[in-house]
Amino acid sequence: MSKIAVVPGSFDPLTNGHLDIIKRAARVFDEVNVVVMNNSAKNSLFTAEERIELIRVVTASIPNVKVEASAGLMIDYAKSIGATAVVRGLRAVTDFEYEMQITSMNRVLDESIETFFIMTNNQYSFLSSSIVKEVAKYGGAISELVPKQVEEALKKKFEA
Amino acid sequence: MSKIAVVPGSFDPLTNGHLDIIKRAARVFDEVNVVVMNNSAKNSLFTAEERIELIRVVTASIPNVKVEASAGLMIDYAKSIGATAVVRGLRAVTDFEYEMQITSMNRVLDESIETFFIMTNNQYSFLSSSIVKEVAKYGGAISELVPKQVEEALKKKFEA
Amino acid sequence: MSKIAVVPGSFDPLTNGHLDIIKRAARVFDEVNVVVMNNSAKNSLFTAEERIELIRVVTASIPNVKVEASAGLMIDYAKSIGATAVVRGLRAVTDFEYEMQITSMNRVLDESIETFFIMTNNQYSFLSSSIVKEVAKYGGAISELVPKQVEEALKKKFEA
Amino acid sequence: MSKIAVVPGSFDPLTNGHLDIIKRAARVFDEVNVVVMNNSAKNSLFTAEERIELIRVVTASIPNVKVEASAGLMIDYAKSIGATAVVRGLRAVTDFEYEMQITSMNRVLDESIETFFIMTNNQYSFLSSSIVKEVAKYGGAISELVPKQVEEALKKKFEA
Amino acid sequence: MSKIAVVPGSFDPLTNGHLDIIKRAARVFDEVNVVVMNNSAKNSLFTAEERIELIRVVTASIPNVKVEASAGLMIDYAKSIGATAVVRGLRAVTDFEYEMQITSMNRVLDESIETFFIMTNNQYSFLSSSIVKEVAKYGGAISELVPKQVEEALKKKFEA
Amino acid sequence: MSKIAVVPGSFDPLTNGHLDIIKRAARVFDEVNVVVMNNSAKNSLFTAEERIELIRVVTASIPNVKVEASAGLMIDYAKSIGATAVVRGLRAVTDFEYEMQITSMNRVLDESIETFFIMTNNQYSFLSSSIVKEVAKYGGAISELVPKQVEEALKKKFEA
Repeated sequence: MSKIAVVPGSFDPLTNGHLDIIKRAARVFDEVNVVVMNNSAKNSLFTAEERIELIRVVTASIPNVKVEASAGLMIDYAKSIGATAVVRGLRAVTDFEYEMQITSMNRVLDESIETFFIMTNNQYSFLSSSIVKEVAKYGGAISELVPKQVEEALKKKFEA
Repeated sequence: MSKIAVVPGSFDPLTNGHLDIIKRAARVFDEVNVVVMNNSAKNSLFTAEERIELIRVVTASIPNVKVEASAGLMIDYAKSIGATAVVRGLRAVTDFEYEMQITSMNRVLDESIETFFIMTNNQYSFLSSSIVKEVAKYGGAISELVPKQVEEALKKKFEA
Repeated sequence: MSKIAVVPGSFDPLTNGHLDIIKRAARVFDEVNVVVMNNSAKNSLFTAEERIELIRVVTASIPNVKVEASAGLMIDYAKSIGATAVVRGLRAVTDFEYEMQITSMNRVLDESIETFFIMTNNQYSFLSSSIVKEVAKYGGAISELVPKQVEEALKKKFEA
Repeated sequence: MSKIAVVPGSFDPLTNGHLDIIKRAARVFDEVNVVVMNNSAKNSLFTAEERIELIRVVTASIPNVKVEASAGLMIDYAKSIGATAVVRGLRAVTDFEYEMQITSMNRVLDESIETFFIMTNNQYSFLSSSIVKEVAKYGGAISELVPKQVEEALKKKFEA
Repeated sequence: MSKIAVVPGSFDPLTNGHLDIIKRAARVFDEVNVVVMNNSAKNSLFTAEERIELIRVVTASIPNVKVEASAGLMIDYAKSIGATAVVRGLRAVTDFEYEMQITSMNRVLDESIETFFIMTNNQYSFLSSSIVKEVAKYGGAISELVPKQVEEALKKKFEA
Repeated sequence: MSKIAVVPGSFDPLTNGHLDIIKRAARVFDEVNVVVMNNSAKNSLFTAEERIELIRVVTASIPNVKVEASAGLMIDYAKSIGATAVVRGLRAVTDFEYEMQITSMNRVLDESIETFFIMTNNQYSFLSSSIVKEVAKYGGAISELVPKQVEEALKKKFEA
């Protein structure tokens, strides 16, 4: 039986930290579905379509990675595609507690899908989409922190 | 002398975690005043009146529990009803630090009213009103997480 | 009905932080039983008798405080004296997690006795018996950190 | 290709929390190798043989679980059996940081084996082998916290 | 060579905790530049000008302290004035992780400027501008928490 | 006036993380005194002399770094050499709380010497002397984690 993992997130935009987690998941699971959670409550810089497109381009060379969007509960999406597992990156303590809340809730909703946490590469352990956006806004150099395509997309956004 | 405890919160809405803390406080203190803090700055899903009504219905069988609203500083409310203690639930580390801030400030305002923390039942240690609202919004099953009356109230809110 | 609280600890030796918690508990509960846990596994600097004697002398002026020793499970002691509550001080995050473990276990052993946490006065939030002993050993000044009698007892220990 | 996961630990003794993690790993991986790390530096209550025997008996009904001991570096053991992943339970913040240290080191030693963290069931989030031993030593009730066979083994140890 | 340190913050408004950090930095560095970060995204209670004026008045007696505003990236400002170091106060764990993120990013932007953290005086370890504003809004006593001039400025703001 | 900083530690043995902090301190302070705290209570793998020698060899090329040993209170040593500041590395949350305890105590002992924390390079944020020793003991590769001379010294220790 093929093992499918979901890697959910808002990816606004994808950072090298996210990419690291996606690659690690792709080494263990047969199929990895990156799902862009499109929660209308949060103001995003990139539209869901733009975020999906960026992840697709950046992960194009990893054959077992797919990218999709979902607007409802993540666990419903995971169930609908027959996923065995959810994979999330862990950076720091505040991440950890928030992830525990989400995982706890997901277990109440569906006990059969397990959440696996992977430690982000040390190099990216204090990296977040928000801080990347903040720096890009003021023209700071972010080429070490995001894939090249994301860097360009950020430049365009803030030039506009 | 009768010992009165205040259990303050936004309770938007009451969860099983809150209820657990209220029951534990009611076993030790002679009178427990649940106070719905009505801070206009935060957008609440339920009005103060709705939140009070839900807590009243759910705690109706506990004779030493009262429910009220307050719009000012919690410590002023506690003083005005002659409370000996404030009781708060503790779930996780982020809770802990925030609670330390509030308690520290309350001691500056009135050193005579002590704050007691009670550990939430493990079963609810990662439960919050926000996560319950998020799940209810997308039709997820929340019957293990909130009292029946709250579940119904949430359904109505999100159908509207 | 009289409300009895247990304040357990190793108190090797009593610090101003411990004393702060004992005083706060004594303001809310009718009777406070300070219990020196005499766990043979830990090497203590002071014998259980010395520790009890120091706490008795220092708390002599607080009428509703008693001091005793116990060698078994704390919760068994609490039950044996008809306690309603256990009171513990909380200083920092590492404390917090350890206390959660103990409280969780105590609830498995006896759900009827509640544990209440009180925040230690900011002034003592980074104070511990171990650090006091370390400093006293090298002749550092500790008069702001422990009661006078404890300071003298520490001096004697390290002169010997 | 069959996916093998290693679940390493000292398991002195196995608790219901450990068992929960082993079962969750066994649902996702084709084969789960529980490995009792036999670090001579730590004083253990049970010998490596006793710990292995207890885990074997308790997990006998899970067909894809094997139990072994290892005395060297865990990552060397994982490599030697062709493991794809290491699985560890996460309970709290202090766990989290320690696990980050170990994982970081393991990546330096062998980048190809990924570590996955699974959140322990809330019910066991404050459970540890040490606290179980402490309570068992004084005759406290631990039947909710460890498998029946472990409970009996603990009783025998402390009667001796 | 003269050593210049930057103490950045939003200072909305300056608290006794901030002042403590500024004084400590001024004892070690030859020149301390307090810089009010004027991030338009956050709603501030005081304008950048008001915040600068308050800090100037309060720090008037410390000869090596200057106060300025900056609207871009803090590290660009630090570079432009030839700073050797950035100094930040550390209160609690949540602070700590956020500061790690910022520092990590600043090192990517300019590795040559080091960030130094100073522990806030225990007395102010749970003090924040937000909690001061919340209390001042409801007429609570804040004279122990902020300099006199800030107390008056807060009173005026909330009378208006 | 020349600014002297003390970088205290047990350095058993020096890691790349320690070296990173020493280098960062040496860029800001005129003189950096690395002090090997020789606390007899802790069992060290290397003698104080061996630890000092290793640090001296590794830091030989940094002109403003000195290495010494001290057996008493660190703050007494700092005072005796006229230090303005103590510099410590910060890796993670558990570090943070322990450091807060030490700093708090040092302020009681001597308020005039400030403690500055520097964030360890991300690459080393989960590195410790203990984990290096554990891995070296079993022949694991540690060349990325410690200076070459330390690697060799560890090899010799574990061959003996």
